[in-house]
Amino acid sequence: MPNINLPRLKESLMELSRIGFNPDDKGIYRSGFTDADMEARRWLIDLAKNDGFSADMDGAGNVWLGYDTGKHEEDSAVVMGSHLDSVPAGGMFDGSLGVMAGLEVMRTVRDHELNLQHPLKVLGTAEEEGRFGGMFGVQAITGDLTPEWILSAHDADGVYLADEMKKQGLDPMGALDAAWQKDQMKAYLELHIEQGPVLDLEKIPLGVVEGISGVFKWIVKLKGKADHAGTAPMHMRSDAFMGLADFAHEIQRIIDEWGTDMSRITVGKVDLKPGYPHTVPGEVIFTIVGRDMSEDVMKALSEACERTLRAISRRHRLHFEYDEVSWLGPNYCAPSMIDLMEIKAKERGWEYKVMPSGAGHDVQFFTHITESGLIFIPSVGGVSHAPDEWSHWHHIEMGTNLLLDCAIERAST
Amino acid sequence: MPNINLPRLKESLMELSRIGFNPDDKGIYRSGFTDADMEARRWLIDLAKNDGFSADMDGAGNVWLGYDTGKHEEDSAVVMGSHLDSVPAGGMFDGSLGVMAGLEVMRTVRDHELNLQHPLKVLGTAEEEGRFGGMFGVQAITGDLTPEWILSAHDADGVYLADEMKKQGLDPMGALDAAWQKDQMKAYLELHIEQGPVLDLEKIPLGVVEGISGVFKWIVKLKGKADHAGTAPMHMRSDAFMGLADFAHEIQRIIDEWGTDMSRITVGKVDLKPGYPHTVPGEVIFTIVGRDMSEDVMKALSEACERTLRAISRRHRLHFEYDEVSWLGPNYCAPSMIDLMEIKAKERGWEYKVMPSGAGHDVQFFTHITESGLIFIPSVGGVSHAPDEWSHWHHIEMGTNLLLDCAIERAST
Repeated sequence: MPNINLPRLKESLMELSRIGFNPDDKGIYRSGFTDADMEARRWLIDLAKNDGFSADMDGAGNVWLGYDTGKHEEDSAVVMGSHLDSVPAGGMFDGSLGVMAGLEVMRTVRDHELNLQHPLKVLGTAEEEGRFGGMFGVQAITGDLTPEWILSAHDADGVYLADEMKKQGLDPMGALDAAWQKDQMKAYLELHIEQGPVLDLEKIPLGVVEGISGVFKWIVKLKGKADHAGTAPMHMRSDAFMGLADFAHEIQRIIDEWGTDMSRITVGKVDLKPGYPHTVPGEVIFTIVGRDMSEDVMKALSEACERTLRAISRRHRLHFEYDEVSWLGPNYCAPSMIDLMEIKAKERGWEYKVMPSGAGHDVQFFTHITESGLIFIPSVGGVSHAPDEWSHWHHIEMGTNLLLDCAIERAST
Repeated sequence: MPNINLPRLKESLMELSRIGFNPDDKGIYRSGFTDADMEARRWLIDLAKNDGFSADMDGAGNVWLGYDTGKHEEDSAVVMGSHLDSVPAGGMFDGSLGVMAGLEVMRTVRDHELNLQHPLKVLGTAEEEGRFGGMFGVQAITGDLTPEWILSAHDADGVYLADEMKKQGLDPMGALDAAWQKDQMKAYLELHIEQGPVLDLEKIPLGVVEGISGVFKWIVKLKGKADHAGTAPMHMRSDAFMGLADFAHEIQRIIDEWGTDMSRITVGKVDLKPGYPHTVPGEVIFTIVGRDMSEDVMKALSEACERTLRAISRRHRLHFEYDEVSWLGPNYCAPSMIDLMEIKAKERGWEYKVMPSGAGHDVQFFTHITESGLIFIPSVGGVSHAPDEWSHWHHIEMGTNLLLDCAIERAST
């Protein structure tokens, strides 16, 4: 049973983590199509080429590395990857781990001169973190882009994707050349840090991800009556905030009644009007973000939220309206890939947990076009998207070895 | 039994309401020591002088009108008044009613050539609405100002009270000459709109105010942990907003257990950090404003708030801290004045309600130096501090007649 070379993987990850590093806040700044992001892509291409692998960038900025002995009987590739871009002030493993682990797997396969039926490819996607909305790089590969979208996409500061690409010497329409055909890809495998607290708290080294949970987002408005907080008796108020508080208090009941242990309902943004200490809030606008692995459960949760808000609004004499801003169904990893990951983890004698991912990942677009799977390793304290994101090297080694085992298996037949 | 002249009072009120009127939003703009505010003061002095009354302005900008036949056996005055300034975009009765009703009472007493033991005075106070903090005009009269305060006071835009006074030709230190001695004032009577919904909703024409409720203000911080709303399971969160929601849900229980029907607890201002829809709120800062007519009840309420917040913070694994920004005890109107108002209302056969005031009024400073009382009339819909503030003329007539009856009674012996 071959094993990956942790010191070599460590060295590559440490080298990559210097690109876009900010010594002030110790964060990594490699937002999509910034200079640091492009520098990381060129660095990876050089590294792979110097190592004897094929390496190039497609029209969407995705980096592709290849190991092809010419002895393969099948053309369709087993792809391992994740993204090379980061959020501003991000950590060193989010995305980077999956790309560099893929390269380490490819190096290990070559070290052992393993004969595989399918070629291996490593992918470093572009702009996964959604600076311009969506997941640009992977969507280009899976054929989920249109010229209209490419030309309209802009970031929160009004900077257009097309302008940023041109600045980096890329033709925005070239992204449409990056699409793969279905039979070109045998499988897609991603290794990623969990970015949540579950594995770390439960002391389990590996997560076998069953899918990316579906998510809905509401913007809710409750409208009552602004009153003087001194002159308006409690029972004569139409206090919009009390309506929200009563709803939030019901969230756990809604999940207990209609959800699963994978359900999440979050109120993350709240705006009171007028928002003065001495005035009864006349209006509140807030967000609800709901998640589950089942679209039916999502529907039951959203219906329960609506029923609860209607009842509470009647009780507090509030006008209730909401806008369903988005509804994205769940994406399921391939059951055959989940099985494979479980088998390979058991063969190594390692504990794992089958679990959903509440965060989005490149893999969610691949699920539509190929057999796809995602491996998690623990994030210390559940922290991510922050400079103090960390995962232990021994977990990185285990995750990469599981990636190796699965990639070899899929590329062998 | 003499009666006031409603058409005459109406005319004066309508005339005053043109000063500082903004035709765009139909609101009245007479913030303390603005040109419109000073114009109203000069207008009132002219009106009273033309009517044969004495009229002048004291060092704090308060307008004093007097009716003195020279036949009084006692020097100490029965004072009727309220304030002449307004909030920005205010209504035409808040403050103005009490001043003009006082003038109408004085006119009625003269019309009927009533012989009184004490002189009558009408007061239009300066800067009651708190542009510079506090209630400048009445505090000057009751001796509650210091030179340090006068020189430090500034508005929300950083404009200093002293500069605004100088611009209007007033010497800021002259405000210290405005203080009255205790035995100079026999009684203080104020007529004011309720600025709340109680009388209007209960269809009661008159309120006999037992006092101004005490008020405490807290700024509370609950600190948990910001998490990804997708990756953090519900039971692993330290959601600061859920702590606030659970507290708000307990407010009615806290009042039921520890308060009275005069208790109010309001959460008027809420700030979530980071305040993103997809992030579990790691921190919430909010205000609690509590009120009651009893300082003991206020203490019990604030202790119950603290206990509740401590328990909820333990449950949600939050760090809890609060700052008691202010604590003002209740101010009680004189029981003898409440009795007198009740007797006079009964004599007229009018329904009334003994009630607290949740808003501050000039009377609250007079309670410390003289026998003081406050009469309320209904505010339509409870609206005030807005252009659509309104009170019915028939209620204004009743309130002014009750003021007349009480003033005559107090000035007679």
